[in-house]
Amino acid sequence: MIEILKNKMTPESILTAGFGVEREGLRVTPQGRLALTPHPPIFGDKLKNPYITTDFSESQIELVTPVFYSVDETYDFLEALTDIVIGEIGVNNELFWPYSMPCSIPDDNQIPIASYQGEEGKKARAYREKLMVKYGGKRQLISGIHYNFSFGEEFLTTIWQELGTQESYKDFKDRIYLKVLRNFLRYRWLIIYLMGCTPGLHNSYIEECLQCMGDCGNETYLSPGGTSARNGSCSGYKNEIDLYPDYSSIKDYIRSINEFVERGDISEAKELYAQIRLKPKDYKNVLDSLAAEGIQYLEIRTIDLNVFDKCGIAKIDLDFMNIFMLFLLLEGEEFFDTWQQEALINEVAVAEHGLEPDLELLDHRHWTLKSAWAEDILEKVAEVNEYLDLKQDRCIKEMQNRVRQPETTYAHRLKLLMQQKGCLDANLEMAKAYKKQSDADHYRLKGFENWEMSTQVLIKEALTRGIKVIPMDASDNIVRLEKDGRREYVKQATKTSADNYVTPLLMENKVVTKKILQENGLPVPDGEEYFSFMEAKQKLTKYVGNKVVIKPKSTNFGLGICIFDQGGTLEELLEGARIAFEHDNTILIEDYIPGLEYRFLTMGDEVVAVLHRRPANVVGDGVSTIQQLIDEKNKHPYRGDGHTSPLKKIELDDQAQMFLKKQGLSNQSIPAKGKMVLLRGNSNISTGGDSVDFTDQMHPYFSEIALKAARAFGAKFCGIDIILEDYRNPDSNYGIIELNFNPMIVMHAYPYEGQERRLGYNILKTIGLVD
Amino acid sequence: MIEILKNKMTPESILTAGFGVEREGLRVTPQGRLALTPHPPIFGDKLKNPYITTDFSESQIELVTPVFYSVDETYDFLEALTDIVIGEIGVNNELFWPYSMPCSIPDDNQIPIASYQGEEGKKARAYREKLMVKYGGKRQLISGIHYNFSFGEEFLTTIWQELGTQESYKDFKDRIYLKVLRNFLRYRWLIIYLMGCTPGLHNSYIEECLQCMGDCGNETYLSPGGTSARNGSCSGYKNEIDLYPDYSSIKDYIRSINEFVERGDISEAKELYAQIRLKPKDYKNVLDSLAAEGIQYLEIRTIDLNVFDKCGIAKIDLDFMNIFMLFLLLEGEEFFDTWQQEALINEVAVAEHGLEPDLELLDHRHWTLKSAWAEDILEKVAEVNEYLDLKQDRCIKEMQNRVRQPETTYAHRLKLLMQQKGCLDANLEMAKAYKKQSDADHYRLKGFENWEMSTQVLIKEALTRGIKVIPMDASDNIVRLEKDGRREYVKQATKTSADNYVTPLLMENKVVTKKILQENGLPVPDGEEYFSFMEAKQKLTKYVGNKVVIKPKSTNFGLGICIFDQGGTLEELLEGARIAFEHDNTILIEDYIPGLEYRFLTMGDEVVAVLHRRPANVVGDGVSTIQQLIDEKNKHPYRGDGHTSPLKKIELDDQAQMFLKKQGLSNQSIPAKGKMVLLRGNSNISTGGDSVDFTDQMHPYFSEIALKAARAFGAKFCGIDIILEDYRNPDSNYGIIELNFNPMIVMHAYPYEGQERRLGYNILKTIGLVD
Repeated sequence: MIEILKNKMTPESILTAGFGVEREGLRVTPQGRLALTPHPPIFGDKLKNPYITTDFSESQIELVTPVFYSVDETYDFLEALTDIVIGEIGVNNELFWPYSMPCSIPDDNQIPIASYQGEEGKKARAYREKLMVKYGGKRQLISGIHYNFSFGEEFLTTIWQELGTQESYKDFKDRIYLKVLRNFLRYRWLIIYLMGCTPGLHNSYIEECLQCMGDCGNETYLSPGGTSARNGSCSGYKNEIDLYPDYSSIKDYIRSINEFVERGDISEAKELYAQIRLKPKDYKNVLDSLAAEGIQYLEIRTIDLNVFDKCGIAKIDLDFMNIFMLFLLLEGEEFFDTWQQEALINEVAVAEHGLEPDLELLDHRHWTLKSAWAEDILEKVAEVNEYLDLKQDRCIKEMQNRVRQPETTYAHRLKLLMQQKGCLDANLEMAKAYKKQSDADHYRLKGFENWEMSTQVLIKEALTRGIKVIPMDASDNIVRLEKDGRREYVKQATKTSADNYVTPLLMENKVVTKKILQENGLPVPDGEEYFSFMEAKQKLTKYVGNKVVIKPKSTNFGLGICIFDQGGTLEELLEGARIAFEHDNTILIEDYIPGLEYRFLTMGDEVVAVLHRRPANVVGDGVSTIQQLIDEKNKHPYRGDGHTSPLKKIELDDQAQMFLKKQGLSNQSIPAKGKMVLLRGNSNISTGGDSVDFTDQMHPYFSEIALKAARAFGAKFCGIDIILEDYRNPDSNYGIIELNFNPMIVMHAYPYEGQERRLGYNILKTIGLVD
Repeated sequence: MIEILKNKMTPESILTAGFGVEREGLRVTPQGRLALTPHPPIFGDKLKNPYITTDFSESQIELVTPVFYSVDETYDFLEALTDIVIGEIGVNNELFWPYSMPCSIPDDNQIPIASYQGEEGKKARAYREKLMVKYGGKRQLISGIHYNFSFGEEFLTTIWQELGTQESYKDFKDRIYLKVLRNFLRYRWLIIYLMGCTPGLHNSYIEECLQCMGDCGNETYLSPGGTSARNGSCSGYKNEIDLYPDYSSIKDYIRSINEFVERGDISEAKELYAQIRLKPKDYKNVLDSLAAEGIQYLEIRTIDLNVFDKCGIAKIDLDFMNIFMLFLLLEGEEFFDTWQQEALINEVAVAEHGLEPDLELLDHRHWTLKSAWAEDILEKVAEVNEYLDLKQDRCIKEMQNRVRQPETTYAHRLKLLMQQKGCLDANLEMAKAYKKQSDADHYRLKGFENWEMSTQVLIKEALTRGIKVIPMDASDNIVRLEKDGRREYVKQATKTSADNYVTPLLMENKVVTKKILQENGLPVPDGEEYFSFMEAKQKLTKYVGNKVVIKPKSTNFGLGICIFDQGGTLEELLEGARIAFEHDNTILIEDYIPGLEYRFLTMGDEVVAVLHRRPANVVGDGVSTIQQLIDEKNKHPYRGDGHTSPLKKIELDDQAQMFLKKQGLSNQSIPAKGKMVLLRGNSNISTGGDSVDFTDQMHPYFSEIALKAARAFGAKFCGIDIILEDYRNPDSNYGIIELNFNPMIVMHAYPYEGQERRLGYNILKTIGLVD
């Protein structure tokens, strides 16, 4: 088989497999006690949110990634979900417990079982109540990683075609997956050794489990040589008796499961807590679907949460799992009566004693030194890697290292921490560090960093609320959002089906815009339009000395606009006309309206944000130079390149230095305390300007004007620029100077001053995906 | 007053006045008999169509232009309406009678009175039935021009302000308009002389009227010296007794009218058939509105239809009317008891004897030679023109000529024609010539020639159906359509509110388009995308020799696409990639699908047109050279520059000559009879291609596919390009190769071969403005 891969496939396509991760985790108080609050309502209906739901307990969040065909994408998505959960539960001052074994937990009768909506929800609840009685609540709070794996379609079809057997493709796939499953069972002890991370327990856990460990004070019980209490025979989450399904074929498997159910060992197929599961197409009829449509993928439940990674699993471990699955497929197998029992013995031995240097395991009925056997297996993995040129050396070396130096294992490292700080503090410190990390980056969405920030805002909100996100084209920022059978395409966050096609075309045209605003009784500056520079030359004379603005007829980005707020000479006006004509073949000259410019952002029938943009500036402290003040201001977490950050760092370029010079200043000047020094004439965010939120301060009269303007065009998403003299006074002079059909939203979402606006929600509301 | 104009206004703004024209005309059979068919239903509800309605009779069309502020715009719009009417009634083989006096008409009881819809319609009908009884039907069939005039707002306010009187602006305007009205009454005889055009009658007209004329055979009666039977005392349309309202002030006027009604001379104000009327703001409450809001404009009813102009009035006459109105304002006036009676005497004298060389008129109770007096008045008009530098010399000279050479008057010229050919044939020949002219230009809409042809298609349909058209911006092709209180903005004919904003953005992106089509089970060519030329270089190798297409990811205009339908060398493919990268930074390579490409045009839920574009070609006749065949083909009325014509003239440029050379041909080759010679590889209309309609021939299976594709994007207006092997066979191979969100419509509306598609209707239907 390996020859087929070598000859017929590229390394890249061999490694292209389907990866999905489920990660459970408890919500805890800052003191490490189980949070008894309800699952945050923002995550919506637990049965419908495909990304964020609960497991057994109301306090036990489960994150679910879709299937991606690269480890990086899967990991990034998991990180995005993790950041979302950390952020949302952080609002209630709760933390995301990073450890597989529970935090400080109450007795069973106080552990909140997850509650659900609707008829479907009643069933889900009843199932959990039964589990509570059968297994107890504390054990159900154990969290872990479920790793879902499927071979790539090209991988499977290539082998199938090359083998040229009579076997159907479905039977072939079943055979492949069953072999991998069996070998996983055989070698699972290695994964427990490499990724096990549950060396101890908090003393609120089940009394009899504590007894299997040593009390090391600090409310903490530790196993001296164990790697994974979660996979051990005492503390872990297992069926009441050991069950050994028949994995020879799908038919045999189904038959054996049915026998277990008949015997009453388990109530239904999904109650079989196997380390690895065969997954069907139809989740609701597992066995029938496996029979009819075959195995779709494998679910591995062996991996503990890795407390040393924010996401609960390290990317390097995911990389290793990929090549390890390939190894399991390629590795031969021998059958004997008790191979499953032997594998279970090895599992428990490694879980409970894996860190002991001289541990021996059963290899085909013979005791073998665990470390030697592990080296042996990893060597075979390395050979596969080398032979197929897969370039996975890094993760294999890392695993070899964990074998050779047991003190580098997660289990050992965590044991030391827990010895030192106790179970709660050791894990809480980790949780707090992850929260700090998430908070600092809260405007970035992992895995979507190559999307515009505005689209990240939208996607983050959609994921949070369980609206399915289908990326259509990252370079064009087009996503599809799906909920309850509805599909909405969105480009650049605010280009949606809520707006009609002609609205932006009207707004694009300044002359038409003005006509429509005027017809609706909305004040716009007086002016006229010129179609040629000759015409401008003839007619501009009458504007000499007047306060006017000259701008191109089209364009939405403020380009080519000259403001003469002190009046201009004929020469200056002509230069303004020349600049405007560079951007359009029709230009406008308009009266200048005094006051400050505010951006009103409307979505649907609401003004959702109001903002004023201030030119790049510093405020003196009486001590620092302008350069020092700039450097200090640039440390603001929102300041960066302006594309992947909400604000731009201020640059003291030639233009800014000229601007200072005109004011009689230089970068070495020391402004008086409280004195604001402007560094530029324009207020663009892209040249270091400040965004200042005015949503709550703006007099509602002006917001109503903005809404009226948007309505005149039937616009659902609209940015209205209004110049007005006093935002508190509805009697102020004002004029509408521009409508923008693709308004920026990031500057409102993450302003320099004032409240952040959760605009993702407003977008979803406007397109009807949330209420 | 003239000093104010000279000093405070430009000639241009003095001449800027409001002009509106109403033009009546009968529908007739090709034999010149009154058409007894109903008013064409396409013109919609007569009470709601603001442009095309009926007057007294069902067979009497009335065209109404909006008010424009230049003669040219008014005339052009009138021509557009005229062309529409000629075209629409032409469908029923009817002609638009160009003459003011009726054609061959039946007795009163067979003259169809206009019928109407609804409650409002009942009143309109009842009023007409009363008129039939009172005045007889034949007289009601007389048609003419109503010329509506208002001074420009700047004109009026400038004079009012400069005069600085205590008078209110409304009172001032009333005074101005009353003076002009009185002077018009005094000098109206001149307009009758200059523009009178009813020298005779058909013998089906009222017997007693015929008696006032001479029978000259050919069913025709002529007045030897008359200019305007319509304005004469015998044949014209007058009140039963002469009425002289008091025009001293609005108050006096209202009082006098009320007296007439009380006395029973007329039933209401609008029954006063004055030569000139004061027009109010509110048409339904004439007198109250005149009192409350003042005079809005003047309506002059003196002008006969000019049979020598398709529109019923010549542009030069409109030009003269403008300066004549100004003259009437500036000219002083003297009052004496019988000034109105004297004016009436003059009117009738000119109407019945205007062509007699020694006709004398009453000027302040003294008989004066008409020709001398006319010269006198025109001299004064010329002085105004010169003093204010109005540059209206041409129309004044023309009028002077009509005075000096009575044989150049319309009346005289028409009298000669009618003598020769009889009333019916003389006018029918004119009507037929106008129809020919309209038909030849039926894809052009007068007054809208600077708009894209597709927008002309839409506007023409809207005008026809009485949907109000408000041009918003010609350079951007944005119009507003209004009907029953609904407003729809349309850009470039098919960019409307019916489509949502995101649909075109999805279609713009070929990758997203393909994904969505595939998800919907629609066949698209296989392929992949490259993000750099380097990537293309690495991956193109595997396509060498394959039938493929290389194209840029975005763009809708077929630019940068290379087709390798015979396979390409690596070099050729790389060249294709290079060209594609010139248009986008992502390119696609796709399987080539064999067959012909058809454009399916969907609007709403229908495929409204299907078209195949054929590369520029000629078909041999066995005699002519290719050059001769091209020259002949270029004579097709649709071939022109391709912007203002539906098709482009074929040019035998270098590229075409190369293409011929490759086939072993030159422009001097003589193709065999029936042999088609292609002149280019591409099928663009813009390079001389043929458009061939396939709407009715295409198998409905493919139309259903096109609709399904449009629906997958929620697109209301969509052009779907499908390549398929046999348009008659639903089992043919096919593939969708492109969706176009702003599909061309002109090629469907005016194809080179096959049926013209009335797409304006489909657009209006799709945006909900017609059923």
